[in-house]
Amino acid sequence: MSQGKVLVAQGGGPTAVINQSLAGVVLESRKGKNASPVYGAFHGVRGIIDEDFTNLSRESASNLEKVAATPSSALGSTRDKPDEKYCREILAALQAHNIDRFFYIGGNDSSDTLRILSSQARKERYPLRCVHVPKTIDNDLVLNDHTPGFPSAARFVAGAFAGVSLDIRAIPGVYVGVVMGRHAGFLTAAAALARHHDGDGPHLIYLPERSFNQRAFLRDVKRVYERLGRCVIAVSEGIHDSRGVPIATKLAGEVERDAHGNVQLSGTGALGDMLTKTIKDNLGISRVRADTLGYLQRSFLGCVSHVDQREARKAGEVAVRFAAQNKDGSVTIRRKPGKAYKADYKLVGLSAVGGKTRTMPNAYIAKSGTDVTGAFRDYLRPLLGSGLPTTARLGGKRVKKILG
Amino acid sequence: MSQGKVLVAQGGGPTAVINQSLAGVVLESRKGKNASPVYGAFHGVRGIIDEDFTNLSRESASNLEKVAATPSSALGSTRDKPDEKYCREILAALQAHNIDRFFYIGGNDSSDTLRILSSQARKERYPLRCVHVPKTIDNDLVLNDHTPGFPSAARFVAGAFAGVSLDIRAIPGVYVGVVMGRHAGFLTAAAALARHHDGDGPHLIYLPERSFNQRAFLRDVKRVYERLGRCVIAVSEGIHDSRGVPIATKLAGEVERDAHGNVQLSGTGALGDMLTKTIKDNLGISRVRADTLGYLQRSFLGCVSHVDQREARKAGEVAVRFAAQNKDGSVTIRRKPGKAYKADYKLVGLSAVGGKTRTMPNAYIAKSGTDVTGAFRDYLRPLLGSGLPTTARLGGKRVKKILG
Repeated sequence: MSQGKVLVAQGGGPTAVINQSLAGVVLESRKGKNASPVYGAFHGVRGIIDEDFTNLSRESASNLEKVAATPSSALGSTRDKPDEKYCREILAALQAHNIDRFFYIGGNDSSDTLRILSSQARKERYPLRCVHVPKTIDNDLVLNDHTPGFPSAARFVAGAFAGVSLDIRAIPGVYVGVVMGRHAGFLTAAAALARHHDGDGPHLIYLPERSFNQRAFLRDVKRVYERLGRCVIAVSEGIHDSRGVPIATKLAGEVERDAHGNVQLSGTGALGDMLTKTIKDNLGISRVRADTLGYLQRSFLGCVSHVDQREARKAGEVAVRFAAQNKDGSVTIRRKPGKAYKADYKLVGLSAVGGKTRTMPNAYIAKSGTDVTGAFRDYLRPLLGSGLPTTARLGGKRVKKILG
Repeated sequence: MSQGKVLVAQGGGPTAVINQSLAGVVLESRKGKNASPVYGAFHGVRGIIDEDFTNLSRESASNLEKVAATPSSALGSTRDKPDEKYCREILAALQAHNIDRFFYIGGNDSSDTLRILSSQARKERYPLRCVHVPKTIDNDLVLNDHTPGFPSAARFVAGAFAGVSLDIRAIPGVYVGVVMGRHAGFLTAAAALARHHDGDGPHLIYLPERSFNQRAFLRDVKRVYERLGRCVIAVSEGIHDSRGVPIATKLAGEVERDAHGNVQLSGTGALGDMLTKTIKDNLGISRVRADTLGYLQRSFLGCVSHVDQREARKAGEVAVRFAAQNKDGSVTIRRKPGKAYKADYKLVGLSAVGGKTRTMPNAYIAKSGTDVTGAFRDYLRPLLGSGLPTTARLGGKRVKKILG
């Protein structure tokens, strides 16, 4: 039995259930009579080199449960990507505090950070177990059926487009909703689950898995608008032209990049505003509106999938069990074959997940390139959980005109 | 007992509970053995002159209940503002279909439409009862304690800022959230209900009831950012300079106006993007993000206050009872004095509400001009209803540094 301490941290963008994984790691680690102390590092790896630790063994189970139900990384997060020197500083801090197990809850950047750290630890012969606990609303981790955080964000996106679709039905026009997801269109595609009745939006869905062509876009919008008198469009923030240049960066002269080299796409309405201008200018439709769903998608207080909550918790718990078996790696979520939805948790190597990006498989994208398939809806529906609100329409008969 | 038919329609922007009022009007009108037929006009007054009616007497109570729970105007809406000629066409259509009671669910523009129509009917000696059923997420109807639709939208805004505040705590920076509300700051002020713990955002709130001064704004943001290392800001889309010019229109060369002369403020991220640029340029803070909450505020499927639902229903029901007493007017919601929250419904003249705008009373705005008072929080909290989610923080002890 290991005698060192346990450390847990959170990296990358927050999700609605990231603290379920935190609670999973902490409560599972605290099981048993001789359980090791559990530390949490504030703001990811940054908190390790700053020795900015909190003793999570002194946190009551009751408060941990409340934190678990709270969206956004309770320990804080970071976009830092450690290099070799940074890793040496991490290892020095871990050694000073006698930490021999590190659980990092994050996306593919965080997983890659663990891969580098784990390799550095081996080089320095520092005995360290590194287990990556998956999370990302982008749903873009390879070898995973889906990732914790995505189902709740998808539920938000579906709720947003269901409402907006009714809004645009009430006061017709064209609506563009911009959804998060740099390279993977899963979250944008989730807008399709907003459809409850014939004619419900979104009527067009633009994913980063397909090149965005402005002429085709305008043709698509015109066709829908002429048929229905309205058009609701879901657009990924990551749409790009055929050469791979993001449409959002075409707009901005200077762009902001994070430590991982990612261009800032969120936190601005520029892409949506550009698309509405394009529609107004070219199609002569006067009522064209855009919303950028923004940070609400990953943080909104009060929109969560119970399936997502349960799985995020479980991912943290199994990470602890894998480490107890002296294994490094990344926890992945698989779907068990069979009619009823059931998840399974397997450990894979850190290099299998770290830094890689999974995108929407072709089977989930309609031939038109502007919609999803039934296979995608079947894939997503069980993840959204129970209690999903629905919508109804008046079904009454039209009254015969008298004046004509 | 009147022998004519009943007509109901919906005007202006949709809300989460506008169909509760519709169900209230329809089900109350259908009570009794000799109940008159109930028609619904599609797209407000526009549907009347187009004779675009549906027979709501043939709608099952069970489907009406489902529609009631669905956000956004089920009958469709309009921004049309009838003039005298339009009114004559309305009266001709009402006469042709033998309609003698008209219930219009809408805001102050819809109430003003009823005032004009009612006066025109009197002039033409057409026996018509006109009752206005209030709704608006802006909460800007005079003589009302609050209006149906506002509490649910306020609940959404509070949930959005609670989540975003945690998000910006996890990855620090400055965040600007732009909230709907042209002249009245109630909905923006609702962001204050997002605060659960010390240091929670929003840290600054800018309302249209106060002039917006860029220098003061930058000074405020700098002060908060230096103290907390982050700053979450709630801004009304209607903020304006000391001469009353909306900041949003200062940006746009050409602006879009509706039939009521209102400038388009929603459906664009321009105001938020301008404010982030101002902060970046002047304060040298690199991570500055903006979201425009947009149409989600009034339509999101799955965020509703039960108090709001109940009151919107009741407002529709009492409108029918007032009409049965042969009264024209606008239904208003008052708050009964006493410790426990209780609403009361009174009828006032159409000219008392129509076309007028209520703004935040001074007692609800902090002296700083960038926050609300306890009186506002006490006012709003009971309207948000039960089951409001809360947030929790880790309370654990910091670990003493070893390397230092």
